[in-house]
Amino acid sequence: MPVATETRGQLVIIGGAEDKQGDCKILREFVRCSGGLQAQIVVMTVATNLPGEVGSDYIDVFKRLGVEDVRVIDTARREDASEAKALEAITNATGVFFTGGDQSRITSVLKGTELDAALHKRYAEGIVVGGTSAGASMMSETMIVDGDAETHPRMDIVEIDSGMSFMPDALIDQHFAQRGRLGRLISGVAKEPQLLGIGIDENTAIIVDNHQFSVIGAGAVTIVDLSEVTHTNLDSLLKDEGLAVCGAKLHILPDGYRFDMQTRQPIVNP
Amino acid sequence: MPVATETRGQLVIIGGAEDKQGDCKILREFVRCSGGLQAQIVVMTVATNLPGEVGSDYIDVFKRLGVEDVRVIDTARREDASEAKALEAITNATGVFFTGGDQSRITSVLKGTELDAALHKRYAEGIVVGGTSAGASMMSETMIVDGDAETHPRMDIVEIDSGMSFMPDALIDQHFAQRGRLGRLISGVAKEPQLLGIGIDENTAIIVDNHQFSVIGAGAVTIVDLSEVTHTNLDSLLKDEGLAVCGAKLHILPDGYRFDMQTRQPIVNP
Repeated sequence: MPVATETRGQLVIIGGAEDKQGDCKILREFVRCSGGLQAQIVVMTVATNLPGEVGSDYIDVFKRLGVEDVRVIDTARREDASEAKALEAITNATGVFFTGGDQSRITSVLKGTELDAALHKRYAEGIVVGGTSAGASMMSETMIVDGDAETHPRMDIVEIDSGMSFMPDALIDQHFAQRGRLGRLISGVAKEPQLLGIGIDENTAIIVDNHQFSVIGAGAVTIVDLSEVTHTNLDSLLKDEGLAVCGAKLHILPDGYRFDMQTRQPIVNP
Repeated sequence: MPVATETRGQLVIIGGAEDKQGDCKILREFVRCSGGLQAQIVVMTVATNLPGEVGSDYIDVFKRLGVEDVRVIDTARREDASEAKALEAITNATGVFFTGGDQSRITSVLKGTELDAALHKRYAEGIVVGGTSAGASMMSETMIVDGDAETHPRMDIVEIDSGMSFMPDALIDQHFAQRGRLGRLISGVAKEPQLLGIGIDENTAIIVDNHQFSVIGAGAVTIVDLSEVTHTNLDSLLKDEGLAVCGAKLHILPDGYRFDMQTRQPIVNP
């Protein structure tokens, strides 16, 4: 197990469409964090309605990177999440990877099950939990379930709900720049302004280690901090009216940059 | 002439795709600022390669709003911009409206011509200059000529050049939320960080009166202020690398909000 002396493991949170054909920079890092060639990886296909196809793609790429012990667990129904085989796989895993699909399938099938408990226990013991697209959204305590893209912020364009709670204090969005989701992320954070909005581009990821994360990949991570806004119109806003946000803080961090969730500041080397 | 006691006129800067069929809120306001039913409006079709069609659309909507004196001036070539008929139209106009198309056509045809001088003279005397899409981009001293959308900020995704200089201190982008242009606007402002980045959504406009503007329309205006960033990687950035921006300020202002360009703050009524 990596980082066994830490209080919990690492998260690899990917904005979707990560490279699986080329140098696989992000998935390579997921494998390295999970123990390298000795990693025991479980691919969770619960989010997708094409579990066979999607699972097989990840088996292929992880095998190509040299991982021998990689298996797919597909929990299509809630009862699957208490099956001995699935629980055993999670108990032995050093890295668990959630594919894309629909994030509300992940929470509706897994939340509160034995598998959920096993996963959080293992995460507390130091394993790596990774996820892409829907598998990224579900990482936070509050998640974006669905929403409109390419529009200004409005309260009725985004739906939020409980996530799988691996990363508190954050609201994560994915395919961020590619789908023009600034308005959607800000609308979500406006509902819970104590959360930090984290928009992750495609083929880009954050690697979270306790309260810090680093950025890796081809795009950037956009961080929206509404904790010090000087004015919003939230109190008087009707459903279809535009949200006003004055004095938000914005950070855009490409590959190699680090961020501290506690200080809410990028970590810039002098 | 409206606002004759001011040192200069008003600007109506529209993010494209303004309503021309329904209540025409924005074009209605352009007409009102230009003198209402007594307005003398010139539609400049220099940006478009469909001047007949586009010009006729604006004639129709301005006539429907009750303006009797509305005409199209199409300066397809630079020599057209010193023709007596065009200069006379500008000299008599109370409102000049630039259609969409390609903003570099506006500057390459008009900049430095007699018509350019006449337009700035009339603007200084108090007339209204309006523009949509390409006609919005050209308003600033430095303008975005072209750029990629739906990507993170990079220096090679945006091309900037001199604009028509009606609004100093700003860099304007249009179709903002609809085309996911946050990365493009930030890339542009990063090249000239003293400028304020103003992203205007479709069917949304700012009405500029000296150093203040108000927002009108269905979307929002996104303001990016890089004047107090705590860190960027601009000094060491290679052409295709991701731009880092730490500590940018972000305001999102819907219909009814006002902003002061001098203080760089939204004007919020208590």
